[in-house]
Amino acid sequence: MARKYVSKRNLEFMLYEVFDAPGLTRYPYYAQHNKKVFDLTLAAALKLGKDLLNPIFEEMDRKAPYLENGRVKVHPAVRTIMAQFGEGGWIAAKFDEKYDGARLPYLIADCCQFIFTAANYSASVFPGLTAKAARLITSFGSPEQIATYVPKMLGGKWQGTMALTEPQAGSSLADIATTAVPTDQGHYLMRGQKIFISAGDHDGVENVVQMMLAKIEGAPAGVKGISLFIVPNQRPTTDGGLEPNDVTVTQIYHKMGYRGAPITELSIGEKNDCRGYLVGQAHNGLAYMFQMMNGSRLSVGMAAIGISTAAYYAALDYARQRPQGRLVSDPTTPQVPIIAHADIRRLLLFQRAFVEGAFALAMQCCLYADLENALEGEAKEKAALLLDLLIPVVKTYPAETSIRSTSQAIQIFGGYGYCEDFPVEQHFRDTRIHTIHEGTTGIQGIDILGRKVRMKNGKAFDLYLEEVGRAIDQARAVETLKPYAQRLAEALDELRQITAGLIARGEAQGSRAMLADATLYLDYFSLIAVAWQWLLQAITADKGLAGHPSKANRNFYEGKLLTARYFFHYELPKAMGLARRLSEGDGLTLAMESDYFSD
Amino acid sequence: MARKYVSKRNLEFMLYEVFDAPGLTRYPYYAQHNKKVFDLTLAAALKLGKDLLNPIFEEMDRKAPYLENGRVKVHPAVRTIMAQFGEGGWIAAKFDEKYDGARLPYLIADCCQFIFTAANYSASVFPGLTAKAARLITSFGSPEQIATYVPKMLGGKWQGTMALTEPQAGSSLADIATTAVPTDQGHYLMRGQKIFISAGDHDGVENVVQMMLAKIEGAPAGVKGISLFIVPNQRPTTDGGLEPNDVTVTQIYHKMGYRGAPITELSIGEKNDCRGYLVGQAHNGLAYMFQMMNGSRLSVGMAAIGISTAAYYAALDYARQRPQGRLVSDPTTPQVPIIAHADIRRLLLFQRAFVEGAFALAMQCCLYADLENALEGEAKEKAALLLDLLIPVVKTYPAETSIRSTSQAIQIFGGYGYCEDFPVEQHFRDTRIHTIHEGTTGIQGIDILGRKVRMKNGKAFDLYLEEVGRAIDQARAVETLKPYAQRLAEALDELRQITAGLIARGEAQGSRAMLADATLYLDYFSLIAVAWQWLLQAITADKGLAGHPSKANRNFYEGKLLTARYFFHYELPKAMGLARRLSEGDGLTLAMESDYFSD
Repeated sequence: MARKYVSKRNLEFMLYEVFDAPGLTRYPYYAQHNKKVFDLTLAAALKLGKDLLNPIFEEMDRKAPYLENGRVKVHPAVRTIMAQFGEGGWIAAKFDEKYDGARLPYLIADCCQFIFTAANYSASVFPGLTAKAARLITSFGSPEQIATYVPKMLGGKWQGTMALTEPQAGSSLADIATTAVPTDQGHYLMRGQKIFISAGDHDGVENVVQMMLAKIEGAPAGVKGISLFIVPNQRPTTDGGLEPNDVTVTQIYHKMGYRGAPITELSIGEKNDCRGYLVGQAHNGLAYMFQMMNGSRLSVGMAAIGISTAAYYAALDYARQRPQGRLVSDPTTPQVPIIAHADIRRLLLFQRAFVEGAFALAMQCCLYADLENALEGEAKEKAALLLDLLIPVVKTYPAETSIRSTSQAIQIFGGYGYCEDFPVEQHFRDTRIHTIHEGTTGIQGIDILGRKVRMKNGKAFDLYLEEVGRAIDQARAVETLKPYAQRLAEALDELRQITAGLIARGEAQGSRAMLADATLYLDYFSLIAVAWQWLLQAITADKGLAGHPSKANRNFYEGKLLTARYFFHYELPKAMGLARRLSEGDGLTLAMESDYFSD
Repeated sequence: MARKYVSKRNLEFMLYEVFDAPGLTRYPYYAQHNKKVFDLTLAAALKLGKDLLNPIFEEMDRKAPYLENGRVKVHPAVRTIMAQFGEGGWIAAKFDEKYDGARLPYLIADCCQFIFTAANYSASVFPGLTAKAARLITSFGSPEQIATYVPKMLGGKWQGTMALTEPQAGSSLADIATTAVPTDQGHYLMRGQKIFISAGDHDGVENVVQMMLAKIEGAPAGVKGISLFIVPNQRPTTDGGLEPNDVTVTQIYHKMGYRGAPITELSIGEKNDCRGYLVGQAHNGLAYMFQMMNGSRLSVGMAAIGISTAAYYAALDYARQRPQGRLVSDPTTPQVPIIAHADIRRLLLFQRAFVEGAFALAMQCCLYADLENALEGEAKEKAALLLDLLIPVVKTYPAETSIRSTSQAIQIFGGYGYCEDFPVEQHFRDTRIHTIHEGTTGIQGIDILGRKVRMKNGKAFDLYLEEVGRAIDQARAVETLKPYAQRLAEALDELRQITAGLIARGEAQGSRAMLADATLYLDYFSLIAVAWQWLLQAITADKGLAGHPSKANRNFYEGKLLTARYFFHYELPKAMGLARRLSEGDGLTLAMESDYFSD
């Protein structure tokens, strides 16, 4: 039975009503597209999700990858997925025409990625990672490297990976110990160990290409000595063949969720015969990697939203069908569907407010990414700054909130939700990875408060306040939205004060004092950002209602408005407690010495 | 390697410093005990956890029970566990001497149960459930029933269960459809289906005794027609043997966690040969069951705290050992243990504030239960009312918060936490059941706001306000605690107003409007209740510090005080947003019709 895991109507609402995706085609950069192309692309993505990815959602979890004779065996469908995503142009969707790409805007391509993650997160990772790895090569690699690797990767024949983490270097990339020794043949000899490498090997492709961080012998200490290398599991030979490149899978991790994708431990150069190919300039690897990081972090947020969206629709469907309890006390009357109960509606409203609010924020970030591509000069810089500022928000708010959202989906199912009979327990397990990979929540908190709100003398933050202020002004013109405009205006004003107070604390007491509650600051910032997005959606829904909509559309817009109100009445008030804490500068966590945790 | 999962020091702090457990022995009811007995009991429980339960914590998860030829096969250690818990008197710990019980106070017996759940939750369920089922028989059964079943159950030879849930009757017990037809031999013929029955069958015991709710033919509709039956899987014959009783296991559920315990679907009376034995009066079954419910719900809360405590100590241990990152920018200096980072301390403080704060509340409830047993008249009623009032709090606050707490334990481990290599991912999976069984969170919200705060004209609530007020007065006498006394006093005053406002709303608009946000009210009530318990602990820790403690005790008390401060600065402020929402009476969730969720 086909199961609903995304709402086409909501995708169209976001792309065509809230954000004007077709408007992007006015710019030369996206001029080859039109709304028709976008519609066809979305329809194709929905079909791919339905026919190829979702039917094996549970199966990929139950039959997890395993290591056999040194090779990782994945679900046989992975080969089909990589082939179809390659041949169908999905891996190359955002690449330029010169790489046979479609140069789709983020708004469209990431909507498709969202559909894939909602259909089957583990499956979506194989092509998604490959695109990101290929992007590093097209951005910083030599023409020869591009010619050797990119067509195979974008064609779905070779898997791409990001090989950063090592046993002693997780959050602290400064401590990477994998070494690269130059040879007189141009390549480097690599040696080291990498852990937690997603898709580090598997039999769904002919080859795996690791984009690997390592240090060239004699490099400066710390992050300034990190270089980026292409390290294929099988290296191309001069006659067009492949030969082993001394990359060994030493372990496959047994994970709680996200089990369809193999996460591997790799031993590099055990026989001193692992060749790495330097990408770009030596010692510049971390900078290259970080230029890709916005996309990676946005993808993580999008995946958390996708998984939670699928869980939400499963819960909604169940809530409408499951009879339990009554609104009247007469036990001889029939039971009502549980969606009649206020508490079930609250659980559903929370999920919807989260998934649609966070998705709107992700779409907003995509729009900034598209404008950065399409525009020049000051306008380009503005888009880039806003995107930079919001990346820790759009990564972490979904990642953290998805734990609660998928948990509440389980709650609606009661005991059934805790069992494998329904998909929600898997969604809950799958999404738990997202606060960890691509920078933990703690790292994101430090990123926004330690760097982003202060960068360029606070320019990004000022631009952001203007953007939100503009939405508030629009909402003030709508009678029913005035109270919400007012609530957001007050919250925004407080955000400005709290931020200034924290920066002042940093100047007076140093960055450790300023950043002690950085994660709470990120939570706080996020609530206001998502409230902004709900105000934008409410403005659009109000317009929709004014336009004599069909019954279905009226229900949709009414639902949007009530969900917006839910966010303002149930979620935004959480900012109050956070603001109170953030305004206290008592250094409590700094005072809590390790010894005080004894016993 | 022995792993730490509870703190003996903290147990002693709670039992002997905050709550005066030995003081109970002044009452005739507990006069046979003394502190020495309590100490020996705790030591024995710790040893049992360490030697028997904890070593198979992972194994019971990995080798889950399965159905083979109609019988449930569990981990072979379950047989040993049931035997040792029977022979050692653990199942009978709280029973009277006439049942060979020790009549231990709740304070001590539930501390032991807490240790067992922290060591291995799934394993702890087998004896724990048996004790609860036996208690129903000793409370309401006939002398013959007691003689037939109770010794076998308390001896660990027969498993006890609670058989309530049916496919159409989960939260709505009014809809139970299992039937009981009287026969002229005294027994009833039972027929129906039960689902989600924990330990409904297994090969670790000789027999399983289901305490089953069913309706006698012709009974009144709804909850008033429910009776309680003993339905053994094997029924005792007149010659002292056992014969099959037509109870069939039709399915074993595949659960996300809590996998060591088999949860079964039972078909009752397929061959019309299932005998049930009425307990007490006909049509009085739900009342009997609910007299046991306080204990069951307290146990669920205690288990959520136990699991989270184990996860906390695993995370603390890791945080002290794992080097990552630096407090200075020089990459040539060694990395520091992650406990040096403020955000890691915050994650640890949250876990400690939760597990020790919630444990204190559970101990407070145990004390009320003990006083209810030991006292008479008005004092007895007072203890009973306070316990009744706090049951939904002590069940739900731990159940809900444990999801976040175990999740934050995972977060401290980073990627490792998501893998089977460490126990925290299992803790996260195990604890997710607790917001569901023994009454969902939604049911508990309705219980506190719809019944408990209003019962006996608000008497329980008034008594509670007095209790908290007394702690505030004590804290006001301690200079360093004055600000916290003040914060709690303000919160308590607001609780009083919010509660009155909700009751008034109910009178004006009906119970559906009053109860729409009952779950939020429970969250709100809980924060204040745990703040009260932290204030009590802080008062005690302050005394401890004044008494020239050893270095270890000084660290312990300082840690307590800082954790108390953490709760007041980081957790209690969450009440602000909740209070704001609860003071709004807009009926938002009631307005959100099912159709508005379309698309």
